[in-house]
Amino acid sequence: MSKKTLPLSDCEFRSLLEKAETPFYLYDGDAIKENVRALYDAFSWANGFINFFAVKALPNMHMLRFLSSLGLGADTSSLVELRLARESGIDAEKIVFTSNDTADEEFKEALKMGVLVNIDDICHIDRIKELALPWPERICFRYNPGSKRTGNAIIGNPVEAKYGVRDDQIVSCYKRAKEEGSSFFALHTMVASNELDESYIVETARMLFSLVKRIKEEAGVDISLLDLGGGVGIPYRLEDDPISFYSLASKIKALYDDMIIGEGLNPVRISFEMGRAITGPFGYLISKVRHVSHKYKDYVGLDACMANLMRPALYGAYHHITVLGKEADEKDHVYDVTGSLCENNDKFAIDRRLPKIERGDVVVIHDAGAHGHSMGFNYNGKLRCSEYLKENGNIYKIRRAETYDDYVSTITDEMEIV
Amino acid sequence: MSKKTLPLSDCEFRSLLEKAETPFYLYDGDAIKENVRALYDAFSWANGFINFFAVKALPNMHMLRFLSSLGLGADTSSLVELRLARESGIDAEKIVFTSNDTADEEFKEALKMGVLVNIDDICHIDRIKELALPWPERICFRYNPGSKRTGNAIIGNPVEAKYGVRDDQIVSCYKRAKEEGSSFFALHTMVASNELDESYIVETARMLFSLVKRIKEEAGVDISLLDLGGGVGIPYRLEDDPISFYSLASKIKALYDDMIIGEGLNPVRISFEMGRAITGPFGYLISKVRHVSHKYKDYVGLDACMANLMRPALYGAYHHITVLGKEADEKDHVYDVTGSLCENNDKFAIDRRLPKIERGDVVVIHDAGAHGHSMGFNYNGKLRCSEYLKENGNIYKIRRAETYDDYVSTITDEMEIV
Repeated sequence: MSKKTLPLSDCEFRSLLEKAETPFYLYDGDAIKENVRALYDAFSWANGFINFFAVKALPNMHMLRFLSSLGLGADTSSLVELRLARESGIDAEKIVFTSNDTADEEFKEALKMGVLVNIDDICHIDRIKELALPWPERICFRYNPGSKRTGNAIIGNPVEAKYGVRDDQIVSCYKRAKEEGSSFFALHTMVASNELDESYIVETARMLFSLVKRIKEEAGVDISLLDLGGGVGIPYRLEDDPISFYSLASKIKALYDDMIIGEGLNPVRISFEMGRAITGPFGYLISKVRHVSHKYKDYVGLDACMANLMRPALYGAYHHITVLGKEADEKDHVYDVTGSLCENNDKFAIDRRLPKIERGDVVVIHDAGAHGHSMGFNYNGKLRCSEYLKENGNIYKIRRAETYDDYVSTITDEMEIV
Repeated sequence: MSKKTLPLSDCEFRSLLEKAETPFYLYDGDAIKENVRALYDAFSWANGFINFFAVKALPNMHMLRFLSSLGLGADTSSLVELRLARESGIDAEKIVFTSNDTADEEFKEALKMGVLVNIDDICHIDRIKELALPWPERICFRYNPGSKRTGNAIIGNPVEAKYGVRDDQIVSCYKRAKEEGSSFFALHTMVASNELDESYIVETARMLFSLVKRIKEEAGVDISLLDLGGGVGIPYRLEDDPISFYSLASKIKALYDDMIIGEGLNPVRISFEMGRAITGPFGYLISKVRHVSHKYKDYVGLDACMANLMRPALYGAYHHITVLGKEADEKDHVYDVTGSLCENNDKFAIDRRLPKIERGDVVVIHDAGAHGHSMGFNYNGKLRCSEYLKENGNIYKIRRAETYDDYVSTITDEMEIV
């Protein structure tokens, strides 16, 4: 079971709603701080444990600066995310660049910045050479286990995945990297997404620990950093159980003691690239009810729409909804909660039991702190909304809402003949 | 069977590629002009036929101006789309505002502009009164047939749809609008999307013709404009047959002669709000190959990604792909054609038979002229690309590519306490 709490008191909400126009995102920095503390505490045994925050989950510089102040690094996968991480003041040492189908400019920029480049394919080694770039001292490879793992429902089967170096190629990648002059080696994989089964993550650790030994034996290379990827899920539904960082860490430690230390291998720094598990439960999309209408079903129409939060429309994902001030009311109505986009899948909830809702009610959509604002689009002329961060008693505006001028800014003033 | 042609000769493509950075969209204005001519010709019997172009399909002012010059109006469904249509110089008389879950400001702006407001729900009548807005002289209602129609696979069942006025309410809406002072009445429905079965559209016409009679009989109201909605599909696959405007129009005319003229009803102006069927087949996404990699499958990695064209990732939609200069080569290779987004569903094609592809090859993704650029997002720090329009021997740049500065433009400079 998971609990769904609100980040502000009713009174604080009312006060914020006087200043902030709905819809908007609110991130609870204080709760995120506690969450990160627990993660780092649980993994304190892991030789300088670090979580590279998956920037795509919440790509706002103010958030990245805040997360960096808590000790987090950044997991980036595009030129824009690289720049965002750098301009957030994160040390290059704490940035991983995990791209796929990588552009030449991305290799150039990542190597120039000195971040840890996570190579996605064996052919990229030659590409870096062709570009005559200085060979990186620190290097990482992304491993795709193929048929050795089954993946989870969300990320799909590794053999069908476009990511990573094949099992039969991985050892030779490290041999080659060593020949080319690398002296620091990392290993990464990512075979699950939004997974709530702890054992799945533990099995990933087991797979990588075993691979560390194989790479040592067959390539003579010591892996210094293991990146277990992201994929740690969060309990979107009340009945879901969250993954406990402490339980996860202790199971991974038992394997580590056995398979790394017990095998006489060098100590390995453990890392993750969690995004959702860091900020997801602590982000809220706040929206106002525009209409309650009675068609063949009963509908609650919000001023937010899938441009603000795509997950329900895209994946049929569940997001818990609280009606402000009606937390104790009986949930004796059944509504489809919709946005205003001209797409019938623009629904935040289908057949959801909620208290009686009226125009002007404020609804809080939970667990929107990751892959929320960042997945928004402008389809149907919809504009993306503002973001606020609560920290240490203050609420800060960290992003303004888009305007019509933003929307048309890339349209050329005149038609230019080319 | 449909044909997949290219809008430029090989030589013209090479010349354009020297000036335009991939990926980019290219729209063939000359072919669109021919297409619109055929549509208007086929429906020339229909009392001043008009197609309100669905702005969400291709929301670029230069395109809207161009389409308007061909006689098209605009179907808008948000404040931004309304402004876009107005700033494209389209007459208010040729603009329909079909929103759902409508904001007060949208009603205010649409009524102020004098466009035809298409009311989505019976409760919106009272809302317009509560806002003390001048009651519109010209009014439209969106009809939801509920269980009387089954919808098609894409748009879903009308009884489950968030749109439109219920069958048992539709007549009273017209009575009320007449009482409030309207003197011009329109009727709209939209029960299909991307439909290639002509009979489905014909049945929609039959349903509305029958409703015109019922509204006349029960409310004493003459419908002057029928908006049959959009939903006319295009043949994405080679084996798909396109809908013929002439065949469609002749079947609708037969029903019209029988059910409107034959019943002694006043002549009705026929309209559609086609978007996809107008520009879809005449838009091309041009992209360059970054990598060909051999993982557990063979992958072609493009410099375009789902940020540029979401349909394949979102719906598993098929888009035909041509490799420039290799049109005649044997398709003896099987590839997944991917983008670079950090999402495994970022694939333009799965297991597609194509000629042997090499780094640097240029691929043309067909049928991207509607719901292409407009559905793009910035997830993973990906930037939306430029757009070009070919018309009358010239190629015009009508949108520049996004930049990092665009991407961060809504992030506040400093954290502002609120």
